[in-house]
Amino acid sequence: MSVKVVIQGACGRMGKALIRCILEEKVQGLELVGAVDRREAEQGKDAGVMAGCKAAGVNVTNRLEEVGPDADVIIDFSSHTATAGNAPHIAEWGTAWVIGTTGLNEEEQAAVHAAAEKTPVVLSGNMSMGINLLCHLVELGAQSLKGKGYDVEVLESHHNQKKDSPSGTALMLGQAAADGYGWDLKEAQVDGRSGMPGERPEKEIGFHAIRGGDIVGDHTVMFAGVGELLELSHRATSRDVFAIGALQAALWVAGKEARLYTMKDAMKYVLGI
Amino acid sequence: MSVKVVIQGACGRMGKALIRCILEEKVQGLELVGAVDRREAEQGKDAGVMAGCKAAGVNVTNRLEEVGPDADVIIDFSSHTATAGNAPHIAEWGTAWVIGTTGLNEEEQAAVHAAAEKTPVVLSGNMSMGINLLCHLVELGAQSLKGKGYDVEVLESHHNQKKDSPSGTALMLGQAAADGYGWDLKEAQVDGRSGMPGERPEKEIGFHAIRGGDIVGDHTVMFAGVGELLELSHRATSRDVFAIGALQAALWVAGKEARLYTMKDAMKYVLGI
Amino acid sequence: MSVKVVIQGACGRMGKALIRCILEEKVQGLELVGAVDRREAEQGKDAGVMAGCKAAGVNVTNRLEEVGPDADVIIDFSSHTATAGNAPHIAEWGTAWVIGTTGLNEEEQAAVHAAAEKTPVVLSGNMSMGINLLCHLVELGAQSLKGKGYDVEVLESHHNQKKDSPSGTALMLGQAAADGYGWDLKEAQVDGRSGMPGERPEKEIGFHAIRGGDIVGDHTVMFAGVGELLELSHRATSRDVFAIGALQAALWVAGKEARLYTMKDAMKYVLGI
Amino acid sequence: MSVKVVIQGACGRMGKALIRCILEEKVQGLELVGAVDRREAEQGKDAGVMAGCKAAGVNVTNRLEEVGPDADVIIDFSSHTATAGNAPHIAEWGTAWVIGTTGLNEEEQAAVHAAAEKTPVVLSGNMSMGINLLCHLVELGAQSLKGKGYDVEVLESHHNQKKDSPSGTALMLGQAAADGYGWDLKEAQVDGRSGMPGERPEKEIGFHAIRGGDIVGDHTVMFAGVGELLELSHRATSRDVFAIGALQAALWVAGKEARLYTMKDAMKYVLGI
Repeated sequence: MSVKVVIQGACGRMGKALIRCILEEKVQGLELVGAVDRREAEQGKDAGVMAGCKAAGVNVTNRLEEVGPDADVIIDFSSHTATAGNAPHIAEWGTAWVIGTTGLNEEEQAAVHAAAEKTPVVLSGNMSMGINLLCHLVELGAQSLKGKGYDVEVLESHHNQKKDSPSGTALMLGQAAADGYGWDLKEAQVDGRSGMPGERPEKEIGFHAIRGGDIVGDHTVMFAGVGELLELSHRATSRDVFAIGALQAALWVAGKEARLYTMKDAMKYVLGI
Repeated sequence: MSVKVVIQGACGRMGKALIRCILEEKVQGLELVGAVDRREAEQGKDAGVMAGCKAAGVNVTNRLEEVGPDADVIIDFSSHTATAGNAPHIAEWGTAWVIGTTGLNEEEQAAVHAAAEKTPVVLSGNMSMGINLLCHLVELGAQSLKGKGYDVEVLESHHNQKKDSPSGTALMLGQAAADGYGWDLKEAQVDGRSGMPGERPEKEIGFHAIRGGDIVGDHTVMFAGVGELLELSHRATSRDVFAIGALQAALWVAGKEARLYTMKDAMKYVLGI
Repeated sequence: MSVKVVIQGACGRMGKALIRCILEEKVQGLELVGAVDRREAEQGKDAGVMAGCKAAGVNVTNRLEEVGPDADVIIDFSSHTATAGNAPHIAEWGTAWVIGTTGLNEEEQAAVHAAAEKTPVVLSGNMSMGINLLCHLVELGAQSLKGKGYDVEVLESHHNQKKDSPSGTALMLGQAAADGYGWDLKEAQVDGRSGMPGERPEKEIGFHAIRGGDIVGDHTVMFAGVGELLELSHRATSRDVFAIGALQAALWVAGKEARLYTMKDAMKYVLGI
Repeated sequence: MSVKVVIQGACGRMGKALIRCILEEKVQGLELVGAVDRREAEQGKDAGVMAGCKAAGVNVTNRLEEVGPDADVIIDFSSHTATAGNAPHIAEWGTAWVIGTTGLNEEEQAAVHAAAEKTPVVLSGNMSMGINLLCHLVELGAQSLKGKGYDVEVLESHHNQKKDSPSGTALMLGQAAADGYGWDLKEAQVDGRSGMPGERPEKEIGFHAIRGGDIVGDHTVMFAGVGELLELSHRATSRDVFAIGALQAALWVAGKEARLYTMKDAMKYVLGI
């Protein structure tokens, strides 16, 4: 029996990729039962056709409450405000929730955490298998290099339509490095440098948000020591890589007990990490 | 007959490299006649030994006025304040001046411009042949891509002791791109991105200053369009490359008429650009 | 009035991208009048539907002679043998011919050259605007660095289905460097290194063909000198960038006089180089 | 009490760096007691002065048998033939042996393996901490990605004087990937690609040896999958990084029991891997 999936943010870039990957069965065992988006012009259209592939037999709606309660999982790539606003409802329905939305502020994150007390939630800035493996390797690398004088910097490049900086994925990677070093990311994080900041403090993680063209997503964590430079990088060459990861997470989280999970939890069974 | 050279900022990283390259005759036709630095601990030492090579027969002093007036060229890698402070004196002596100091504010730049009315001055954020060729190619590239929707970003990486951001070289490269596009760099320049800056405006050049370890200097100019990415990069693998360029500029500028020159002027005869 | 286009190799990756870009009017002023491919399973299908978009009203055929004589331009991304085999027929019809096929041996190239005496032909290993600009910058850079001890290497990365190495584009870029240095590429070209080749001769251009995953196409030309490294790179993030360039070339070459043109000729009016 | 060290291949690039790092106490607890090299012109010179720093009180000799038997460790960066030729003697003396020589053929490797039955030997294509950490991460990454369709390629760049290809370090990294995948490296290794190799087989590791300028050493392992690219890279910015690693290994191996060790063994206590 298939896992019933609703896509929230169905008409965005990621929403369309998710719909396409479900209909093309890139991940098996999933059934599309709802496509939610607030864009006026798309209301009532067939979700499959809207996403550029075959008819799905499911129409785009702006009412999550019509499709969310009966679904097994909601996959959410909407916006930080929409995600936070839906949190209490999803908690009430008890539908499993996979969240790929980025740029949530502390209050919005708190709303998601509250929901995770009543329903299983996977929250991740990046759903790709490769990125989650990279996070794991960054944390291991940082554990080995801890206290040996290696400066950490995080670079990310995205298309010119991306609104938040640094990317959620860059923050995930920075968090992995901070965890390995035993640092609090909030204290160490510096976004860009300008003017006369002076010599670089040791306890600092620099973030650099490059924006241009239609870059899907590049990320690099650099460990710079005396006489050597270690770089761990990921390049997404197609948005499908995120969609496939989100669908794998959806398959995994459906029916789990209420808790806040990370992709790392979901990926353990896939990557063995 | 040799060109007589004074090094200002003799005990810094670049100062030592310059002294070494003169004594090892990496560029021929130059004679070291003065080594100026304000560091107390180095006063009176032989400049060659201080720089880690053979004796130079010239001692480190903190008094530029003792050696500057009789020199043919002063090569200056001191600090933005020292550079500006020395400007009226050097102008009075009429000694040619090669300036590699970066981080000058507008007032300090004005002091240099005033000196250039009385003595020949080469002012450049980067003295390497490769970087100056890169600037030229960036400007040509920008001229071709002008108005075709290619976003420009400039990345630079330097060691963790560097105090100013972005590097003078990054600004040179950004200026070359801005010139090619017909833009005012000041209007387009953005140093780093943080929080929720929103979609990238077309008329913007992003600068990203990465700091870590002992990186000598990496620079990349990225043109990001729809479906493609063009990157023009330079990596300095040794500080000598800047020293050799500065010495070539010194050789070239000695005896020229009073004016503000760029490395491009000095490099024309070397690179034929 | 539209320029009538036939796609040869219509069911390959590039063929589909070309059909899609014509139907979506990514370049205006073109009309699809034929789609030729030898694949049995695709015969008779609507070319638009086969390419994953709307119906084109043109069916896939394996008979170029049915559609080629009346077209204005044939765009050819078939195979080196098919391209060479069709050359005498296309010459006879006098149809303009844009060739993106790579891996042609000397004899096959001679067949194309012969055809170009009777009909206008654009032959290029890479049709993207960015790559053609890069070629231009590589040649200029090489002219400046000629005789100054900078070693040239060419790196390219492509998906794991690509059959020929190095890529046609890598050879174009190597040719540009060789032209700038005044070298014969055939004498200087070395594909990979293995075992104990000894110290690198100065007059050598190394080619490195990386293959993996679904990489669309990365190319880098490296100039490595003492103390510095200059890299000029291009990354294609979508196959559309080649299709659009080929369509621009088709628009330009239709009606020109018989001759062998390069993309550089076609791009002169676009890039002003 | 200090560990007594002999440098074999003392007048090469690495030999000089080792002598300098011992005399400057970059790693503490080591004493230089011999400097062996066959270069005629250097015989009898003080090893410290020859290496560009202070006098060492030890003269260059071409007779390993004079200094080897009484040393605690011989650090060997000579040549594959010299290394193999010395193996039986070193085994007889029972002196610990750290070997950084690369390019050994199977017979030469067998000579080293035989010596390791009588004396402790550390054999490694690369002595840097960063590279050895990278190897570890590459193996872990490969274990996670095994069987998931990620193609592996290894790129390395070195100065134009390097004689063997691919570098010993590249082979170490390729071995780590092969181990993670459960492959035999010898079956999978391909050095460069040329002509018409056809579609890339899945079970293949491509090696690419870039040579130019004075590049100290860059290495990248690429895992290329559908929609994503994972790259793990290391850049040596100074030869000291290898010297320091070799000295750490020397300190560790002195007095250990006879066996063939890798840097991984030596690094376990440093990196905790």
